[in-house]
Amino acid sequence: MITRAELQLLRSLRDKRHREELGLFAVEGEKIVSELLAAGHLFEKIYATSSWKGERTHEIGEEEMARASHFPTPSPVLAVGRIRREALQAGELDRGLTLALDQVQDPGNVGTILRIADWFGLDRVLLSPGCADLHSQKVIQASMGSFARVRAIVAELGTALAGVGAPVIGCALEGRDVHGLCAMADAVVVIGSEGRGLSDEVRGLLTFTVTIPRRGKAESLNAAVAAAVVCDNLRRPAG
Amino acid sequence: MITRAELQLLRSLRDKRHREELGLFAVEGEKIVSELLAAGHLFEKIYATSSWKGERTHEIGEEEMARASHFPTPSPVLAVGRIRREALQAGELDRGLTLALDQVQDPGNVGTILRIADWFGLDRVLLSPGCADLHSQKVIQASMGSFARVRAIVAELGTALAGVGAPVIGCALEGRDVHGLCAMADAVVVIGSEGRGLSDEVRGLLTFTVTIPRRGKAESLNAAVAAAVVCDNLRRPAG
Repeated sequence: MITRAELQLLRSLRDKRHREELGLFAVEGEKIVSELLAAGHLFEKIYATSSWKGERTHEIGEEEMARASHFPTPSPVLAVGRIRREALQAGELDRGLTLALDQVQDPGNVGTILRIADWFGLDRVLLSPGCADLHSQKVIQASMGSFARVRAIVAELGTALAGVGAPVIGCALEGRDVHGLCAMADAVVVIGSEGRGLSDEVRGLLTFTVTIPRRGKAESLNAAVAAAVVCDNLRRPAG
Repeated sequence: MITRAELQLLRSLRDKRHREELGLFAVEGEKIVSELLAAGHLFEKIYATSSWKGERTHEIGEEEMARASHFPTPSPVLAVGRIRREALQAGELDRGLTLALDQVQDPGNVGTILRIADWFGLDRVLLSPGCADLHSQKVIQASMGSFARVRAIVAELGTALAGVGAPVIGCALEGRDVHGLCAMADAVVVIGSEGRGLSDEVRGLLTFTVTIPRRGKAESLNAAVAAAVVCDNLRRPAG
């Protein structure tokens, strides 16, 4: 059973504004909920129909799920999590490897970048407030469970990147060859928006820019693809 | 003006089966049609409303476009192209760099991989018949114009890869470190399906497998992301 008020709350969580007001987010789908549970994510509530084999806090009927779901074809499980707003520690960006996203608006790209940061063992991902919302279904789903493992912080890049001790490296169409980045231990790599690239504010804070050498004629690479190539170069042993 | 028969034909092109029977495909949207025209693609017909500023062969009304379009919100232009079925030349895979896709089913991944092949100047992309259809709107759109520039060939990989003189390299979770691939001039790199990886048939034809070293906990990387990292390593100068 689910009350009318609960149903209304669940439906409201598809909007970023409501998520932020309530401090809650919702994620649906057997695969992604299983991945997050396997990664140790603690949900507040897990609504599920009888066909869901995993853990639950509330058993509900298929008709109730159809009304709660954001999908045309509802899945057997809908989990509600609490939004943890991570804050940058003083000097945190001076150490380790950070991917910073400057208005990366496509949720598929943001989720894929969380997965990339997880694969390459980066220390954190920084998202400007103009990025796709970290707590949206599409971002969490594209992250394939990495959402639960990667430290992700929303922050104004103009403030966060000012005075960072590590090199702040922008990805751009003109810059040093990315193949020179081998085995950097401390760095912030900034990925720009899909359409407009790096913002002027961020450009003013860069130590230098890097480019993935182009041999053909494509105008650009997808933001997540570029992030992965740069991470692979950062993680490559020197020599 | 557009006849009823033409309208029916345009609408039928959203299905792969009809595209193959008719030897035609359709692509909609100002950005992608402009990119393909800029890349020199020759369309058979270009239907456009008065708000489209580019070239056209047929001016049609907005209501007609709404009926012809595959989109809930139609764009001002719908272009029809002829499907050119490229065939592999004897010994073609022995020379240059090839990306071969083994049942990569997500059209966004296939399109993004065409864009990657274009950026890194690869010689061709081979698609197994189980891949997302090369002539679907989503593949062409995700390729960002690279559809018109990259030589793409649909072929059974079991036949195409048998007896190839160049190394046939599979991307897998276990294999040699990808950082050993620098500056290969002739190679075929095989990317497996998103869910199941490389098929057994293809595995039997590989010279060796490579892996992108993992430092964190993600289970895998997206197919297009993995393809890009491997291409960057192939294109990296030795030493």
